[in-house]
Amino acid sequence: MKRQVSVTIFGASGYTGAGLYSLCLRHPGVHIAALSADRHAGERLSAVFPRMAGLTDRVMVSVEEAVEQATEVAFLCLPHEAAMAVVPRLLDKGCRVFDLSADFRMDTPDSYAAWYKVQHTAPELLAAKVYGLPEFHRERIREARLVAVPGCYPTSVQIGLAPLLKHRLIDPRTIIVDAKSGVSGAGRKLSQRTHYVETNENIAPYNVGRSHRHVGEIEQELSKFAGEAVRVVFSPHLTPMNQGILSTMYVDLTQPLGTSELLDLFRSEYAGERFVRVLPHLPETAFVQNTNYADVSVHVVPDTGRAIILCAIDNLVKGAYGQALQCMNIACGFDEGCGLPV
Amino acid sequence: MKRQVSVTIFGASGYTGAGLYSLCLRHPGVHIAALSADRHAGERLSAVFPRMAGLTDRVMVSVEEAVEQATEVAFLCLPHEAAMAVVPRLLDKGCRVFDLSADFRMDTPDSYAAWYKVQHTAPELLAAKVYGLPEFHRERIREARLVAVPGCYPTSVQIGLAPLLKHRLIDPRTIIVDAKSGVSGAGRKLSQRTHYVETNENIAPYNVGRSHRHVGEIEQELSKFAGEAVRVVFSPHLTPMNQGILSTMYVDLTQPLGTSELLDLFRSEYAGERFVRVLPHLPETAFVQNTNYADVSVHVVPDTGRAIILCAIDNLVKGAYGQALQCMNIACGFDEGCGLPV
Amino acid sequence: MKRQVSVTIFGASGYTGAGLYSLCLRHPGVHIAALSADRHAGERLSAVFPRMAGLTDRVMVSVEEAVEQATEVAFLCLPHEAAMAVVPRLLDKGCRVFDLSADFRMDTPDSYAAWYKVQHTAPELLAAKVYGLPEFHRERIREARLVAVPGCYPTSVQIGLAPLLKHRLIDPRTIIVDAKSGVSGAGRKLSQRTHYVETNENIAPYNVGRSHRHVGEIEQELSKFAGEAVRVVFSPHLTPMNQGILSTMYVDLTQPLGTSELLDLFRSEYAGERFVRVLPHLPETAFVQNTNYADVSVHVVPDTGRAIILCAIDNLVKGAYGQALQCMNIACGFDEGCGLPV
Amino acid sequence: MKRQVSVTIFGASGYTGAGLYSLCLRHPGVHIAALSADRHAGERLSAVFPRMAGLTDRVMVSVEEAVEQATEVAFLCLPHEAAMAVVPRLLDKGCRVFDLSADFRMDTPDSYAAWYKVQHTAPELLAAKVYGLPEFHRERIREARLVAVPGCYPTSVQIGLAPLLKHRLIDPRTIIVDAKSGVSGAGRKLSQRTHYVETNENIAPYNVGRSHRHVGEIEQELSKFAGEAVRVVFSPHLTPMNQGILSTMYVDLTQPLGTSELLDLFRSEYAGERFVRVLPHLPETAFVQNTNYADVSVHVVPDTGRAIILCAIDNLVKGAYGQALQCMNIACGFDEGCGLPV
Repeated sequence: MKRQVSVTIFGASGYTGAGLYSLCLRHPGVHIAALSADRHAGERLSAVFPRMAGLTDRVMVSVEEAVEQATEVAFLCLPHEAAMAVVPRLLDKGCRVFDLSADFRMDTPDSYAAWYKVQHTAPELLAAKVYGLPEFHRERIREARLVAVPGCYPTSVQIGLAPLLKHRLIDPRTIIVDAKSGVSGAGRKLSQRTHYVETNENIAPYNVGRSHRHVGEIEQELSKFAGEAVRVVFSPHLTPMNQGILSTMYVDLTQPLGTSELLDLFRSEYAGERFVRVLPHLPETAFVQNTNYADVSVHVVPDTGRAIILCAIDNLVKGAYGQALQCMNIACGFDEGCGLPV
Repeated sequence: MKRQVSVTIFGASGYTGAGLYSLCLRHPGVHIAALSADRHAGERLSAVFPRMAGLTDRVMVSVEEAVEQATEVAFLCLPHEAAMAVVPRLLDKGCRVFDLSADFRMDTPDSYAAWYKVQHTAPELLAAKVYGLPEFHRERIREARLVAVPGCYPTSVQIGLAPLLKHRLIDPRTIIVDAKSGVSGAGRKLSQRTHYVETNENIAPYNVGRSHRHVGEIEQELSKFAGEAVRVVFSPHLTPMNQGILSTMYVDLTQPLGTSELLDLFRSEYAGERFVRVLPHLPETAFVQNTNYADVSVHVVPDTGRAIILCAIDNLVKGAYGQALQCMNIACGFDEGCGLPV
Repeated sequence: MKRQVSVTIFGASGYTGAGLYSLCLRHPGVHIAALSADRHAGERLSAVFPRMAGLTDRVMVSVEEAVEQATEVAFLCLPHEAAMAVVPRLLDKGCRVFDLSADFRMDTPDSYAAWYKVQHTAPELLAAKVYGLPEFHRERIREARLVAVPGCYPTSVQIGLAPLLKHRLIDPRTIIVDAKSGVSGAGRKLSQRTHYVETNENIAPYNVGRSHRHVGEIEQELSKFAGEAVRVVFSPHLTPMNQGILSTMYVDLTQPLGTSELLDLFRSEYAGERFVRVLPHLPETAFVQNTNYADVSVHVVPDTGRAIILCAIDNLVKGAYGQALQCMNIACGFDEGCGLPV
Repeated sequence: MKRQVSVTIFGASGYTGAGLYSLCLRHPGVHIAALSADRHAGERLSAVFPRMAGLTDRVMVSVEEAVEQATEVAFLCLPHEAAMAVVPRLLDKGCRVFDLSADFRMDTPDSYAAWYKVQHTAPELLAAKVYGLPEFHRERIREARLVAVPGCYPTSVQIGLAPLLKHRLIDPRTIIVDAKSGVSGAGRKLSQRTHYVETNENIAPYNVGRSHRHVGEIEQELSKFAGEAVRVVFSPHLTPMNQGILSTMYVDLTQPLGTSELLDLFRSEYAGERFVRVLPHLPETAFVQNTNYADVSVHVVPDTGRAIILCAIDNLVKGAYGQALQCMNIACGFDEGCGLPV
């Protein structure tokens, strides 16, 4: 693969955009056209992230300039609302767009409005987008013009539950997801919530029940695997570490099955998937830190008719920019793992 | 209250014993007779815990010496098995015993053997002990000769679920407990699991399902509130902080109830309990760190028939030595909060 | 001591003010007149710090209201500049003022202007204030109307170096201070510097050399012990923990002395000081966490003519509100340790 | 470069050995002959480090077996003493040896015995070895049969001080090194010192003065740059993070020089060095985490005649296995940065 694709990254001054750029620097098939960061336009990326000193002298530009310079591939690491403001123009220019915001994850304008409390400004694209979870939508990603890269929590939940839902092995009304996330999931923007002193030495649940925005995305996608409406109870927790998500999921089984049978099912479903590791032992977030792996395991709880499924990912990598690059690799004909850390 | 009780602490070189001793130093009604620490007998406590320099010159003695010196009150901060080896002798001497180990928490020799894989050597005391969770057993603690102080996880679970079980508001077969603990819960003993590098920046589930030893204690005690057999799914997670437990609990409601009704029920059930705070917002472990508080809240999940109950405690304080001292205060006629941090 | 003093705390919504209030709640001789927090006026303190739920229903007021309500004792936990705006009025009302800001630490308007880049608005009070480091200025604190409570770094440095400077044992031009601080030293205000992700897993030096504002205070006070001008090299480092300062200090000895001689000198100088612990082993910040102790040790480096002095304090307690309360205890005739954590 | 070298790693079950193996897996010119781990012989590496699941099925062997299988290149990630027991045999077999232990870092048997308190068993090799700090010894490494890879602290100190010593710009008797290290520097072996609870939320100095073993290595190597005997004061501190070293160094300048002159000198000395970044701002350990970079800066302190030099490295990468691989790349004719993370 000698071809080089021209890539523009929008929102390079956040953790996701900067991490994506770091991967792109090492990707043999990527040429960087522009990096945008409105608030930091005119500054070097290495001034914002000193760890990149010596790796790049790249100066960031405004979103407008980046739209102009984008030609072939655009990654959007922007907040929701900001993304949908530029996606139509990028598509019109012929770019293939990989949107890491939430703007195109929902399938309908109504569901978007319901979960994000804002009207969608490019509703016609919602049906046209492809949902960028390669393990389930690889073929459609190959041809997609607009890929909505999944949220971090939804990625871990789908990898954990899809095999069971597809085989009708669990009651889709009994799903409980207890998720633990590192702090980078809240982004680089300042808030009391992410102040060191208040996050360190603390486990903090937030938006428990069905109030976190990712619930909409989770239920939408799980329902497709289930073939019927899925409703989840979802409790995210902020934990004192930088990176990582562990989703501990609880389900009622529809038939008596043992742990080893279910592990076999997972192994079979994910056979050939290089970024999913089905483990007989329990996943831990440290095992996937800075990698694109999703580690998954399943354990039947004796005498209860229930199973526990655990899935660990790095929220920034498989949960964001790693998965986005994986999608791009597929769409642009590179080896799927090209440039991805393992 | 001018009376002084003579207190002996067994196992003073662990986190629990040393923490208890620190509280006792400030307790106006406590005179310390002896501290035991077999491995460190002959050493000063402040040599093991330099933070206690200047506070005490106390030298630790062997368990045997401590048994001899114990007269009135004995706290046992020993591993299970070691505790039951000395409890009968202490009771014979007329001591009131507050056992922080697991040895007397189960009600029958069979259940003890089932969960701890060892035969009980003082089975006749299992029925005689009082379970030391003051919010539920205050009157019996007042007269008890042997108090089995609860485990850290079971304390948080019972405070979270007792009101609902007592009022038959939840299906006792649907309880799921997802618990997150700080590392001090694993004690001061060395293990790869508690090595800094492997615990830092990591969320690690362990013994998920029904395999953790605290499941036996949880099910035994919850069944009493429910009036029927309770079975729980229990997933503990090791998290990168020193102290704290958050138990996130999921239940099916037996009738349609709202969050505010349930909060009112909790407020009513815990009215007058100075160490239980019923919160309208979500508990976090930092809010209870180094205190004897249990913070509890409940949230009904719309359209699911389920509720989430959250309970945060400091695993070392309300989950161990604070609760033990609370029991002693009750048993010996001190103000219940005497010497306890809030 | 049955007397109650009426205390007003300005700036109660910061770490220092809230911590001071927590101590006051347990202090038998303190009655709280008012808590100020301009930005949070009208809110409960427990809404800002949920850990105080159940401990207090106190509502915070504006600075203006607090000035009106202050009668006897005022603690100022305000930023510099804000403090000097109210101190004269509080003194006029007859209050004894304990100012935890930097506004009255310098001895002259010029040195204040030089280090804080702002003109002093109450310059006549600079000479009248008493510097609130009880171990060195106890008698003057007893009578003081205005106490300038020292900065956190300067406290640790003075306790470490005063004995040596007073006895002319070190060359006052050779002092190097390498200090490591927890993140709470930067306050509760938001900044990229204190964002969890950027502080966690990081050691970050800042303002090294002679650029940190505490250098002025350190040199001013050390010069008094030395009887000549002292100049220090000072390198603060932000470290991934909530609380604590360790100052590692390097000096040239003026005469050949051994470690044990110097330890004896320290023991003699601090004999009777209940909050200074002279240790033969190395201090660590965890040993003083949440206490008012300063742990200090000294080690002569063989074959170099140099000594290393180490001093650990909790930056929020002995480095701020604990020391302030210690000063108040002295000034108001309470036992010096009343209400202080050890 | 199509050539493949056959590499054997001794001590693969420690952080250094496993990290080195991870790099080797991605190195296009490395074929792994064997991994040794006596205590874990017969086990898969991925059983000890679950993060390597899916990356390798490699089973570890005994040291004896590894010696037999080693043919071309051997990396020794063994404790000192264990390394010198096998090095002569590996050299006899014709292997090029890269020893990450301390066994061959000292130049004479006497200095080894003085610092490591044990007699050297292969003293004739001490003079024959090459000290593996490529920035200073690149040409000799090219031909070396035995490379003694430097310690982590000494690497950071030499990169920080060599330019100044070589140009006689500092007084070699005035060097003070205050170093802060992450916990992985203490290895994977269990000790109370590395127990999570006792290291978290703590800054702990240890072996201050001239007692740490790295002092011997530092003084030996710095003396070569200086052309005269150098004596340092060295204070290492354990800090609550996994990886990273920051050395803050204090020196007396021999002539009046400004910060920008010294930065220019550093830039000139390290021109062309791809793993040394000379920074105008202050280095932080997070900026070099998981990279082979050494970040260095220098700041003259006004009015003192002193300068502060700061050097940050990842103790495991540039401080250990990254530097070892860099040496191997040089010795075996690969591109110097091949396989190294930046």
